[in-house]
Amino acid sequence: MHYTLEHEDPQSKARAGTLFTDHGAIETPMFMPVGTAGTVKGIFQKDLKHQANAQIILGNTYHLYLRPGLEVLYEAGGLHRFISWDRPILTDSGGYQVYSLAGVRKIQENGVVFNSHIDGSKHLFTPESVMDIQRTIGADIVMAFDECTPYPCDFTYANNSMQMTHRWLLRCKEHWDKTNPHYGYNQSLFPIVQGSVYPELRKQSAEFIANIPFDGYAIGGLSVGEPAEDMYAMSSLVCDILPRDKPRYLMGVGTPVNILENIALGIDLFDCVMPTRNGRNGMLFTKNGIINIKNEKWKKDYSPLDEEAELEIDQQYSKAYLRHLIHSGEMLGAQIASLHNIHFYIWLAREARKQILNDTFTEWKNYWIPRLSQRL
Amino acid sequence: MHYTLEHEDPQSKARAGTLFTDHGAIETPMFMPVGTAGTVKGIFQKDLKHQANAQIILGNTYHLYLRPGLEVLYEAGGLHRFISWDRPILTDSGGYQVYSLAGVRKIQENGVVFNSHIDGSKHLFTPESVMDIQRTIGADIVMAFDECTPYPCDFTYANNSMQMTHRWLLRCKEHWDKTNPHYGYNQSLFPIVQGSVYPELRKQSAEFIANIPFDGYAIGGLSVGEPAEDMYAMSSLVCDILPRDKPRYLMGVGTPVNILENIALGIDLFDCVMPTRNGRNGMLFTKNGIINIKNEKWKKDYSPLDEEAELEIDQQYSKAYLRHLIHSGEMLGAQIASLHNIHFYIWLAREARKQILNDTFTEWKNYWIPRLSQRL
Repeated sequence: MHYTLEHEDPQSKARAGTLFTDHGAIETPMFMPVGTAGTVKGIFQKDLKHQANAQIILGNTYHLYLRPGLEVLYEAGGLHRFISWDRPILTDSGGYQVYSLAGVRKIQENGVVFNSHIDGSKHLFTPESVMDIQRTIGADIVMAFDECTPYPCDFTYANNSMQMTHRWLLRCKEHWDKTNPHYGYNQSLFPIVQGSVYPELRKQSAEFIANIPFDGYAIGGLSVGEPAEDMYAMSSLVCDILPRDKPRYLMGVGTPVNILENIALGIDLFDCVMPTRNGRNGMLFTKNGIINIKNEKWKKDYSPLDEEAELEIDQQYSKAYLRHLIHSGEMLGAQIASLHNIHFYIWLAREARKQILNDTFTEWKNYWIPRLSQRL
Repeated sequence: MHYTLEHEDPQSKARAGTLFTDHGAIETPMFMPVGTAGTVKGIFQKDLKHQANAQIILGNTYHLYLRPGLEVLYEAGGLHRFISWDRPILTDSGGYQVYSLAGVRKIQENGVVFNSHIDGSKHLFTPESVMDIQRTIGADIVMAFDECTPYPCDFTYANNSMQMTHRWLLRCKEHWDKTNPHYGYNQSLFPIVQGSVYPELRKQSAEFIANIPFDGYAIGGLSVGEPAEDMYAMSSLVCDILPRDKPRYLMGVGTPVNILENIALGIDLFDCVMPTRNGRNGMLFTKNGIINIKNEKWKKDYSPLDEEAELEIDQQYSKAYLRHLIHSGEMLGAQIASLHNIHFYIWLAREARKQILNDTFTEWKNYWIPRLSQRL
């Protein structure tokens, strides 16, 4: 895997680049749809590719490890083949889900013992086992095992946790370097910067991690409830320390505005469940702002979801029809809203890239920020 | 609307024909996917048309009347425009749902008072109001308001109910003939033969109804729990009485085997929720028999859902992947299984038509019946 930095915006820290993997190229900035359990909820792989233009999707190690399980994935020849997706995949380390989803869990130096949220069964994730699991899942980009601290988090906890995440990173890297891909293509390990919202911790973590050679670098522990200003401050601080010639991935972020602001700070890759999760509940992200399709005002609005959109379903379906589907709890409503939102997020990232390459990013961003955040 | 009878099978009563509507032709025998609330659950209209080859879909008057409601549908310009479907639509009369879904309901000579299953609100359906409602929905084929008797049903109840259904039919027809379509295309009213599983009642109902000129005729009150032999006996008896030069629609039927047997008895049109409802629960209808994808045996079966299928998703997705999706409660599992099953049902009807036109239907049917009913 290698990354080419193509252009830097003169008025901000925004960058355009391309990340080359054995499953194809990822043009950055890029948004990665979340395919938790081997499916981006409600979207056919064909539509993800040809309608939404997704270049890479995410899988969640925690979910995939529990179901369908490693044996099924290994015998399938890895996650790509299992789910019929031939473009790049990134898997997280499972850490975030262990903290947020699992029942009783115990974090120790060795790793984390947790109970499955599905059947209560007991499991142990260690930095080493998570590397093995991700070798078996077979994503192109795999994440180091970390602790994602909650917000708020006191300084002492955040500091101790970050130090452990660093020790875990060394264990991940050592184990990773001793193992080989199973399926004939390369996999790259990305480390994760932690440190909560404490600048001195973020600086320390970014410096520690930047000193170790990796194909890309991630920022974790943000978008967990902190004010947007704190997120931007941490992102900015960390981007200034991370290597210029490697891609940077901000985990779990965010709203369209969050994405544009972080692109301006030097972030290249994003993922978030918001477009699909909020879509299922009737929230649409559009070029004119945010629509809550459940509202009475859309009841007889027979205009297309987006008149100017390149996406077929945006022209085909009306707001009134989508409102009816979401109100009625019909699957098709969730399907339409999810595909619309994923397409929109990827459109936004691609458009940002064009503007960066054109030296017009900052002006463009300043025009869009107020539009994207208004409620229609 | 008119119907052309194209060919009759020499060894059975199977027929091939074409029903011409203002929204296009329906080649019979044909299966009509059920789009209860203005959506065939989990399937994009585009896929219904181009992947599953649906020539006509159903809407449920009861559901559409309650949600989105007549005002929304009328101002949209009718159901076709509201849901973006430009091929024919048939709506039932709402009777079946009133009996099966609504809360407290009271059947009287004038009509049925019922409480909405959504919000408990009180409504009255009469033969006249149901005609008006279906004018507003705007389907190409609309159904008379009837009472669908349950199974079992004693003779006296079945007889009285049938007589009332006949009186209601006359009221429907009288009101229908006095009203006009709202949206510039023609609509045809189909009457419904009732009589439970009593041959003398079915004969009486079929004769009563066959004597009134309509563009097509339906058989109701079957597939409600009676033995398949009773269904076939009633279907056969009624088909022998109904006009030869008009299409016949058997409501709510059924399994693939039920469909082939009834085609052999002279039925032209079918609808059933089975392909979508059972699909959502992991039941797949295939050329080799019925698959319960939840079973352990499919866990590591990486073969395509159907190797020979013309349907893209049948080649793309494996049994193991679909099993994982259904087990995980993922929407995509329901989407894949629903599209697969609808495609299969329509394939079956189209294939039957080809065989009828080729004078090979009976032989073909005898080959398929045992295959289709086996459990894999």
